[in-house]
Amino acid sequence: MTLDFTDPLMKTYAIAAVAMIVKTFAMAWITVWRMQSLHTGFRSPEDLQPTRLNPRPFPHQLDKDDRVERWRRIHQNDLENVPFFLVGGFLYVLTAPPLWLAQLALFGYVLSRLGHFWAYATARTHDTRATFWTVGQLIMLWMLGATLLAALA
Amino acid sequence: MTLDFTDPLMKTYAIAAVAMIVKTFAMAWITVWRMQSLHTGFRSPEDLQPTRLNPRPFPHQLDKDDRVERWRRIHQNDLENVPFFLVGGFLYVLTAPPLWLAQLALFGYVLSRLGHFWAYATARTHDTRATFWTVGQLIMLWMLGATLLAALA
Amino acid sequence: MTLDFTDPLMKTYAIAAVAMIVKTFAMAWITVWRMQSLHTGFRSPEDLQPTRLNPRPFPHQLDKDDRVERWRRIHQNDLENVPFFLVGGFLYVLTAPPLWLAQLALFGYVLSRLGHFWAYATARTHDTRATFWTVGQLIMLWMLGATLLAALA
Repeated sequence: MTLDFTDPLMKTYAIAAVAMIVKTFAMAWITVWRMQSLHTGFRSPEDLQPTRLNPRPFPHQLDKDDRVERWRRIHQNDLENVPFFLVGGFLYVLTAPPLWLAQLALFGYVLSRLGHFWAYATARTHDTRATFWTVGQLIMLWMLGATLLAALA
Repeated sequence: MTLDFTDPLMKTYAIAAVAMIVKTFAMAWITVWRMQSLHTGFRSPEDLQPTRLNPRPFPHQLDKDDRVERWRRIHQNDLENVPFFLVGGFLYVLTAPPLWLAQLALFGYVLSRLGHFWAYATARTHDTRATFWTVGQLIMLWMLGATLLAALA
Repeated sequence: MTLDFTDPLMKTYAIAAVAMIVKTFAMAWITVWRMQSLHTGFRSPEDLQPTRLNPRPFPHQLDKDDRVERWRRIHQNDLENVPFFLVGGFLYVLTAPPLWLAQLALFGYVLSRLGHFWAYATARTHDTRATFWTVGQLIMLWMLGATLLAALA
């Protein structure tokens, strides 16, 4: 297949990939925003030096605060999932699936991660969060299975 | 080279990539299974709400338990290695190496990670675990070196 | 575009990708070197067994030591950024940008990460470290935006 963006499968993949990368990066941006606005959740000893962004430091700024840690956990969950979607989704579109199926799988995955984000950010129960994660995992298994079948054919 | 799966190098890469993604995901599945069966190792305050999957929560469920943490450490080691293999292995097959050499490098890497998994899961000594990891790192350096030579040629 | 290394855009991408993978792996190598030379910072209970690499273990070797933890934090920051650069940079060169612009973006990103490494390793202020990280993030946003525009065109 062509690897420029004239191929609708590549367009689909690129849109989903950019969405998931921005989503993951946004977890870092929110973590920084929470640290700055709450003046807490820093992690390195040198972060207690007075600077323009932290003019009046105090020792408790190195304590763990769940208003910051929550975003780090969501970020970590992205690190455990998104890089593998980025590669697995690329290999899947290389198998040349029907466009509607690729859109269902790739955009469905993005939606499952946004659902996971909503459930985690608003502290829904573990079961709600796990349900969204499981949907994403099932889509991944579908894409990986299709890739393996194509590679072994 | 062609990027569909008619090329044996792409087949080799895709099989190794799927194997490593599934291996990494399996660390999350085992972590969840240990948390559920041991009723411990949860990480978020809201995980102490009673739910279908955790009907009778108790505060110690948020404690760290090495029977869960061990899987998180193995998972973390995958996060430090597998995403870079997925990209580095792809670039390596783009250099069009001999098929047998690509199979040796890519499948050898997969085996080194399975060895690392065995050593870590069964709590072998640090030296045993480090040996498997080093084999994987040396294969990575080989592939990265070949890629750099091809890019600079 | 061709996906062998005759294309100067692919050469540029491959050189930047190899540089960032080696940079990330180097964080693990430095962490291991600090653990071995300082005899501290281990994380698994079995690491207290006497081995060739740790002939006289003692319980404090499992304590956290900032001379090791600092490298783990730098490594973690790479995990939060580099895998997304590897995929985002690849998609960006697929949009066929002018070569000079691709070199500016990709090699500029590598430099921003080396600056972040220097600031973190030598314990500069949070603001200095954050500045280098922000430069890398802005380059990523540029590349992701260009990819999205090409995919939606």
